[in-house]
Parts: sequence; structure tokens; C-alpha cells
Amino acid sequence: VPPATEPTPPPSPQLDLWNKDSASRNAIVHFIARVTDEKGPDFVPVAERIAVFDNDGTLWSEQPMYVQLAFALDRVKELAPQHPEWKTKQPFAAVLKGDLAALHAAGEKGILEIIAATHAGMSTEDFTKIVTAWLSAAVHPKYKLPYTELTYAPMVELLEYLRANGFKTFIVSGGGIEFMRPWVEAAYGIPPEQVVGSRIKTEWKEVDGKGSLQRLPQLEFLDDGPGKPVGILEMIGRKPIFAAGNSDGDMQMLQGTKQRAGASLSLIVHHTDAEREAAYDRHSSFGKLDKGLDDAQKEGWVLIDMKNDWSQVFSTPPASK
Amino acid sequence: VPPATEPTPPPSPQLDLWNKDSASRNAIVHFIARVTDEKGPDFVPVAERIAVFDNDGTLWSEQPMYVQLAFALDRVKELAPQHPEWKTKQPFAAVLKGDLAALHAAGEKGILEIIAATHAGMSTEDFTKIVTAWLSAAVHPKYKLPYTELTYAPMVELLEYLRANGFKTFIVSGGGIEFMRPWVEAAYGIPPEQVVGSRIKTEWKEVDGKGSLQRLPQLEFLDDGPGKPVGILEMIGRKPIFAAGNSDGDMQMLQGTKQRAGASLSLIVHHTDAEREAAYDRHSSFGKLDKGLDDAQKEGWVLIDMKNDWSQVFSTPPASK
Repeated sequence: VPPATEPTPPPSPQLDLWNKDSASRNAIVHFIARVTDEKGPDFVPVAERIAVFDNDGTLWSEQPMYVQLAFALDRVKELAPQHPEWKTKQPFAAVLKGDLAALHAAGEKGILEIIAATHAGMSTEDFTKIVTAWLSAAVHPKYKLPYTELTYAPMVELLEYLRANGFKTFIVSGGGIEFMRPWVEAAYGIPPEQVVGSRIKTEWKEVDGKGSLQRLPQLEFLDDGPGKPVGILEMIGRKPIFAAGNSDGDMQMLQGTKQRAGASLSLIVHHTDAEREAAYDRHSSFGKLDKGLDDAQKEGWVLIDMKNDWSQVFSTPPASK
Repeated sequence: VPPATEPTPPPSPQLDLWNKDSASRNAIVHFIARVTDEKGPDFVPVAERIAVFDNDGTLWSEQPMYVQLAFALDRVKELAPQHPEWKTKQPFAAVLKGDLAALHAAGEKGILEIIAATHAGMSTEDFTKIVTAWLSAAVHPKYKLPYTELTYAPMVELLEYLRANGFKTFIVSGGGIEFMRPWVEAAYGIPPEQVVGSRIKTEWKEVDGKGSLQRLPQLEFLDDGPGKPVGILEMIGRKPIFAAGNSDGDMQMLQGTKQRAGASLSLIVHHTDAEREAAYDRHSSFGKLDKGLDDAQKEGWVLIDMKNDWSQVFSTPPASK
């Protein structure tokens, strides 16, 4: 039975970069109207308005590769003069030769070796400086813009819209937590304490009575797939009522969001825009969306059709096509 | 050189339960005036006003034992009929016989076995229900009041005072994170997402397509001593500017707070009040404060003299002495 009256429109900011007739925008607007209507059956108190967002492929681009992987490969090249053995040692040799096939063959073990060599063996403060310096200099290989200008403008608008409606917005990403924290506040308005991510082990070490936090070459927590609801529990301790992802690695997060008693909404960014960004889903190396596409309808997850639902993709539109 | 003019008094709420002439109250009031003075050299933007508080012995009583230990011992007794072998198996036999010497002899290994038996093997939702039910029924052995009424009123007032001055308040406790989350919002005004604590391992398990978070009998993170600055990094990602603790297990947290560039303040609750609560420090089984007492002056940590600085100890004063 459809409701007798339309829900009251929520306050500004509006979702101006979203196609007004799209199913995704309608689902968001109606959901917000329901959970913010104090007299309605689906009202959710402000304290429980928790929204979680994947990052890679959901808030910024993950093509042609994860931004953090581009960072790691650049770091290998920068550190190579101090490691002459890397010339013949995989996976480093593959990186230095630009041999993506050999890098792919090194698999997850290879990636972890690269992470250990490029993300560990320093204090958290030093790592933050390295990330910040890299981001201020690096540009996307295709769009020739800094990565932080290639966030998805409609999603940044959605974050603001949720916060204007009393939501607390969190990132829940498979990416490294300390890789994200230095820049997400400026890019998304999300403070460091609202970032959930993968972690390597960190240790408090005292030298001459002065302690510091040192990053160790050991993966401690992988915030992906079944790790996402665990990360949400550990760092947030409440079930979200709103979730957005784009790949199969987000599905358990979306399932956990649906489990909350009461209203909830889950979105999947579907990369359908070959012209402005990229069209990919079931067969992509980064951000594979296969089971999620199969299950979306059954689970009630709303697909965002990037090509048709968004009037603009990137926060700074690239100059040339 | 003393400042030419007194700092502007901060807005209400005031610290009415604190002795107006005490060094601790003065240190707090002056610190808040400095970091909130937009034109002063020590101004700290609201986003960076992070305050961290230990829980046991800092926000509520840890005598005659940690409240969570009292919970675990009660759980052992409640579960004993399902475990006939506990009658002769340590550390459970010690609990069932009330043999505190044998329990103490079982040491940390014994405590971990009790935690595994009483805190794991269930979903997080079920654990929350167990904690909530226990807290609503249990009373403190000496004061005969529910534990949540035995929070320290001046510290609750301090939390409100900090929040009124733009601070975000966090708990950073050696206690179990899921043991605290069900009640700290009502007791302290601190939401679940601002609680850092020790954790056992939690796993997302899918049964018949429905996932749930299951608690496993394995310690994952001990948020005590050198673990505290690590927990603060992982869950907050910013250096606090204000910290309060009461035992040697808080010292690394206080050191980490002092390391931040700019103004910071660290407090130690010193249990000096044998009449209203308990007088203990260097030789206590719970909340031992030994090295912290030695280092306080050198480190610039401010001692709170419970007996002389607080006009009231507990949020609900016990009826009889």
C-alpha cells in the first residue's frame, strides 16, 4: 500500500548532482524523510543515525588501480636505491620493471611484502608526512589531476546531505586506516576518528624515556568482506542504518546494516559510465561486483547507475576527454 | 612570568563539586581558558579537542575489585551447573569456593580462562543482554547500590564541562569494550563509538545466509599500559590534549598526551579518601599507582586529591557508612 501523503522534503543541502527522477535519489530522499519524521513509525534518534561508506570505488576512483597501490608502487621506486637486491627480487623487480603480469602473479603475498616494505618501519607521524607529500604531488594517470580532486561529487554531496539530517558519517574501507586519515577530513568532511580501515600492527616503543608509535611490517586487521562488520563493531559499536559500497567486499557490511531492527538503506555504486569514468563490475581486478549484482534485488540494495543518475562524476571535472 | 590578566572564566556547567581552591580544579579551569581563547597562543580548534579518560578507578570505583571481574565471577557461578568439571578445575574451583588466594595464584592465565568462559561463545547482541541484565540486578558489596550509581560525580561533571567547551570525550580503558558500551552513554554521556577498550576476537559467521558477530575465546587487544596509546591511535587517530587516569597502566596514555605539540593537560585521580571510598596507591592489587606517583611532578601531571578536592565522591551517595 503506497503512503497516502508524500513524506515531507528534508532540509537543504539537496542532492543537486543526482538525476531527480532516478530510483537511487528517490530511495535516499524517501528514506531520510522516514527516519527523520519524529511522528512516523520509522523515526530514528539522532544518536543512532550512523552511515558507513566504503572508500575505493564508492567515494573516489579505484581505476586503473587502488590509489594506495599507486602510492606503494611509487614508494618502491623511491626506496629502490637503498635496496639494490630489489632489482632481482619479486615482487619488487616486477614493480621496478613495470611488469604488471609478474606483479599480479605475486598475488596477495606479494602485495603484503610491498606493504611491509613501504608502509612500515617508521613512526605514524613520519608515515603521515610521506602520505601527505605524495598526495600533494601525485596525479591520476588518466585525468592528470590530484587524486583528492577525483572524489565523486554526488557522493560528497550525499555525505553532506546525511550530516545535515543528523547523521554521523564514517568511512569503512579495505584501505589502510593511516593512509586515509591525513586527507579524508578535507575531502569528505569525515574526521580521523570516524575512519575504519585495514591496519598493520603498531607498537608503543620507548627510547630514552620518550615513547613513540612505530609501524610494524605485519598485517593486523583486514577491513574487507567479513572484516567490515567486525571493524564496524569494534570501532563504532552500533549497527549502521545507512551503508554505501560498490564491490563484493562490501556485501557483509550491507548485510549487517540490513540486520538492524527498524529502517535501513544500502546503496551500491554501479560503475556504468565508460565515458566519464569506467564501466566495470563482474570481471574487474579492482572493485569486482559479481555476487553483489546477483543479490541486490533480493536483498533490497539500491543500485546507483553512475551514468544515468549523476550529472557530474568528479569533484573537479577533468579538462579533456 | 605570570599572565597579566586572569583568563576569562569558561561557560557553565562549572565544576561545582570540586574544591574552589584545589590545585586540580585550578589547573583544569586555566587549561580550558587557554585552549578555548581564540586570540591566545594556546588556542586549539574544536575538532582537535580530544579528551581521554580511563574508566576503572578514574570514572567509577575499582575497589574491592574491578566491576568486570565481579561480573565474571558471578557468571562463573551462574554457569557452574552446566560445567560440573569446574568443581575441581582451577581457576573455576577457586571462584566457586570463594578462595581468593587460589584465584590470585591462577594469575593472568587464570583470568583469561575465566574471561574466555564467561565473555565468549555467544553473539555480541547476547553478550550485551547479559551485561545489561547483570548491571540492573548487581549491587556493590560495600555500598549496596547499583554499580552505575557509583560513578564519581565530580568526574561526570568534568566530562560535561569539557563537552560544554567543545571537547569530544572518549573512554580509554583496560576493561572490555563490549562490557562498557551498553551503559556508558547513560552513565557518562559517552556514546559507544567513543569507547576504546580491550577486545576479544570477534568473527562474522554466516549460517543459512544470515551473518552474525560471534565472540571468540581469544584475547585480541589489551588496552592497558603501552596498549593505550596504540588503542588511541587505532580508534581515534588524533593525539588527545586532555587525559585522566589513576594507575600505572595509564602512564603511557598520559605520556602520549604530553607529546602533542601545543597545550595539553593530564590528571591522575589519587585515591586518598579512606572514609568516603578507599585510600590506596603503591600497593593495591587493583589500580596500583607507583611509578606514576614518582613521575607525576617531573612529567607535569596534576594529582587529584580525592579527599580534599571533591565535595562529593559518588553520583548517588551511599546511605550509610
